[in-house]
Amino acid sequence: MTVTDELLTNNAAYAEAFSGPLPLPPSKHVAVVACMDARLDVYRVLGLQEGEAHVIRNAGGVITEDQIRSLAISQRLLGTTEIILIHHTDCGMLTFTDDGFKADILSETGIKPAWAAEAFADLDTDVRQSLKRVASSPFIPATTSLRGFVFDVATGRLREVAPN
Amino acid sequence: MTVTDELLTNNAAYAEAFSGPLPLPPSKHVAVVACMDARLDVYRVLGLQEGEAHVIRNAGGVITEDQIRSLAISQRLLGTTEIILIHHTDCGMLTFTDDGFKADILSETGIKPAWAAEAFADLDTDVRQSLKRVASSPFIPATTSLRGFVFDVATGRLREVAPN
Repeated sequence: MTVTDELLTNNAAYAEAFSGPLPLPPSKHVAVVACMDARLDVYRVLGLQEGEAHVIRNAGGVITEDQIRSLAISQRLLGTTEIILIHHTDCGMLTFTDDGFKADILSETGIKPAWAAEAFADLDTDVRQSLKRVASSPFIPATTSLRGFVFDVATGRLREVAPN
Repeated sequence: MTVTDELLTNNAAYAEAFSGPLPLPPSKHVAVVACMDARLDVYRVLGLQEGEAHVIRNAGGVITEDQIRSLAISQRLLGTTEIILIHHTDCGMLTFTDDGFKADILSETGIKPAWAAEAFADLDTDVRQSLKRVASSPFIPATTSLRGFVFDVATGRLREVAPN
């Protein structure tokens, strides 16, 4: 029995108590971009209920082409206007470099990834440049609020990063 | 007052009841890739607790270069081995085409995105090709379980898609 099987058992219990379909567009018109970190339960951290916000996540909570794609779809098709970016303390992305990561993969597989790993050395600096990547995209024009935060995995608290 | 401000007030309440740091590596060694849809609260749908699984999300729950990047980091640095893919019924990605989406953006901004929108016409077909995108990547070699599902937004239930 895999962990996946165990989680499917959990899903059966979830479905038993499920209360039916909600509308497709996020009712709070918010899109969140956050790290994939297991400790960062975005709905709980922000007090979000089902149906309220788009939640986009990847390694680091960084902004690459795919987050621009997701935010463009979120705004154009589904009416979101506020964007929240969340990095966090004790992030794995602080523990390696792109060069080292790619050299290890090349050594093991014989192939060097053509993509950037997006490792970063400083949380606030990467939140700031992520805010700028979003702000500078021509494909996300409906934004009325764009703010970036660091989630503290020791306290559960979000700290805002001032843009510069 | 923005919705973001309201969510920050929620976070203060969350932090009051927060019980302190958990380890960085996901304790269940699972990575989930799911759609950003607001109705899909991955932790609740799978009965996940904080600290147990990486959660990667984007428009559609599709596999692009950034999900390969995130899964590679998840496996190589943080020891996950099982992968769960989740699409869902009533998905926005079923409601448009890449060509139409790009033509609209070109018309409004004067720029055509260089990226694919990744719209799809059939859920099961896209889950299957997403499974194959993961399985065919040389950068995600530690996978011991790879399964794809469609979440039903009317019932809360996950239905497995058989690979072909």
